[in-house]
Amino acid sequence: MREHGGNLDQAVQRFGGRAQDWIDLSTGINRQPYPVGEIGQQYWSALPSHSDIESLHEAARQAYGTSASILAMAGAQAAIQLLPRLAPRGRARVLAPTYNEYVAALSVAGWDVADVPTFDALAGADLAVVVNPNNPDGRRHNKAELLALLTRVGRLVIDESFVDATPGLSLATEAGRPGLLILRSFGKFYGLAGLRLGFALGGEADIAALSAMAGPWPVSGAAIAVGRRALLDRDWAKATATRLERDCPRLDAEAKSQGWRLVGGTPLFRLYETEDARAAQERLAGARIWSRVFERQQRWLRLGLPGDEAEWARLTVALSR
Amino acid sequence: MREHGGNLDQAVQRFGGRAQDWIDLSTGINRQPYPVGEIGQQYWSALPSHSDIESLHEAARQAYGTSASILAMAGAQAAIQLLPRLAPRGRARVLAPTYNEYVAALSVAGWDVADVPTFDALAGADLAVVVNPNNPDGRRHNKAELLALLTRVGRLVIDESFVDATPGLSLATEAGRPGLLILRSFGKFYGLAGLRLGFALGGEADIAALSAMAGPWPVSGAAIAVGRRALLDRDWAKATATRLERDCPRLDAEAKSQGWRLVGGTPLFRLYETEDARAAQERLAGARIWSRVFERQQRWLRLGLPGDEAEWARLTVALSR
Repeated sequence: MREHGGNLDQAVQRFGGRAQDWIDLSTGINRQPYPVGEIGQQYWSALPSHSDIESLHEAARQAYGTSASILAMAGAQAAIQLLPRLAPRGRARVLAPTYNEYVAALSVAGWDVADVPTFDALAGADLAVVVNPNNPDGRRHNKAELLALLTRVGRLVIDESFVDATPGLSLATEAGRPGLLILRSFGKFYGLAGLRLGFALGGEADIAALSAMAGPWPVSGAAIAVGRRALLDRDWAKATATRLERDCPRLDAEAKSQGWRLVGGTPLFRLYETEDARAAQERLAGARIWSRVFERQQRWLRLGLPGDEAEWARLTVALSR
Repeated sequence: MREHGGNLDQAVQRFGGRAQDWIDLSTGINRQPYPVGEIGQQYWSALPSHSDIESLHEAARQAYGTSASILAMAGAQAAIQLLPRLAPRGRARVLAPTYNEYVAALSVAGWDVADVPTFDALAGADLAVVVNPNNPDGRRHNKAELLALLTRVGRLVIDESFVDATPGLSLATEAGRPGLLILRSFGKFYGLAGLRLGFALGGEADIAALSAMAGPWPVSGAAIAVGRRALLDRDWAKATATRLERDCPRLDAEAKSQGWRLVGGTPLFRLYETEDARAAQERLAGARIWSRVFERQQRWLRLGLPGDEAEWARLTVALSR
């Protein structure tokens, strides 16, 4: 398996404790999740019905502010798995550093794929991928830039997995433009990554092709029941975005006290430059707080935001040691 | 969407009522489901961990009596979606009539695929598919027959989606033999189709290839938590198999009183030949009982087994009208 956050297994194996003893800040998954609540027995027992899936699609359209074609999938990752088959193999370019599954999926499927370090180097690609805002460094691109790029590539995939807390950045309102495919994650902002839910938004033909590849029941009944309720709850989304925005400076201040420099981030995670990220990770691990380090950037440490005050307190104590 | 059972939407649209007013016997999904029970918050919030997925695999190996390579997937359907990419395109033959998604998935991916009416006509195929016991007619093949066929085809897929109630029919104990791929459904026997869980069992290379195509988080946290618990509960499985076996003659007797002839079936569904299946479906629909008819076999009516006594009573009344 490729390097990912959320690999608490490794933390337990290396540093001990039980998974539930740890505060997992190695991902950008919101630690104050949307309440799962009651899930009717029919969502467990029956095959997801066409009308249930459609009502989930409609909830997502409302939440994302689009009337474009949309497909619920088992996480944005499910769309990434199918992406190489959406178009004939060609030249794919991925704005890097970023989430490592794009290059992996395209490469194994025989695409000519490469990371590129600059936005301009995406031009001319048959398939260009921009994660916006980017993981792990929070780099962001505005609508005008992205729409200009769209005219210079065969197909533009914008991964908006971390956009929910800053919806003004989203290009969902432009979904449906030829060549534009937008991926949304549900689990990160709503703190329910185990539900496996995400969405692809795009032109009718692309979404139909993804739907045919994903099959007749692409998400679980629980994903429909919980996802629909959560996406329609705009008050919760606003309150959560406000809380996360407010908490970022608090985490940045903790980091600054360690001499860590903020590289960038989103309201769901922060990327810091440290002197030695592995040493910092080990120090936090001693207090059962798990963080993300990067093979290729030995000074980078990524931290998700703590959830409740108890978690903040544990982080403060861990850092003051 | 292709013709499937479980399309209660259509029943509601044509005959009225709310979905929850209906008894859905149009599928082979057990109507006395395994109790979902408590699901820990971590299964909702965190990405499924490697060790959690492994523990689910181990539970499935125990339940199915195999030590072969195994992959949890979002239903047997998820494996069918990936099947066309497991091997270079070639000649695929599917023993028919059967579940219609095999031909559909292989055909759209460019395989030379055809239904064949006899077991012997599968020989020589690069990919042969046998659903055992078969849906909708319950046709079954013994181990010796299937193992002999395995030597005469490139790859043999045995879909055991309906085998749980008659585990002696399963070839899971033979999984790992070169060219053999076995698909298991979780949702049907356990009555939890909305969970989206199934398994592929086979040789190490095939399972690794499916895993790479399915991606790092192929099932939800709830599927892991509930699936693992259910698969390890052998008492429940035995009691359920006994109940279903006992209930089959009861349903067959109801059918016989209508002059319907038993074509075949499994303990999860029965296929009857009627004079006019659509008329029978409409009569049952008047009592909000949904059944399955078939485009190509106008006399066939498939019925799942009612769950509790109240459902049996409603069926008896509906049929006595």
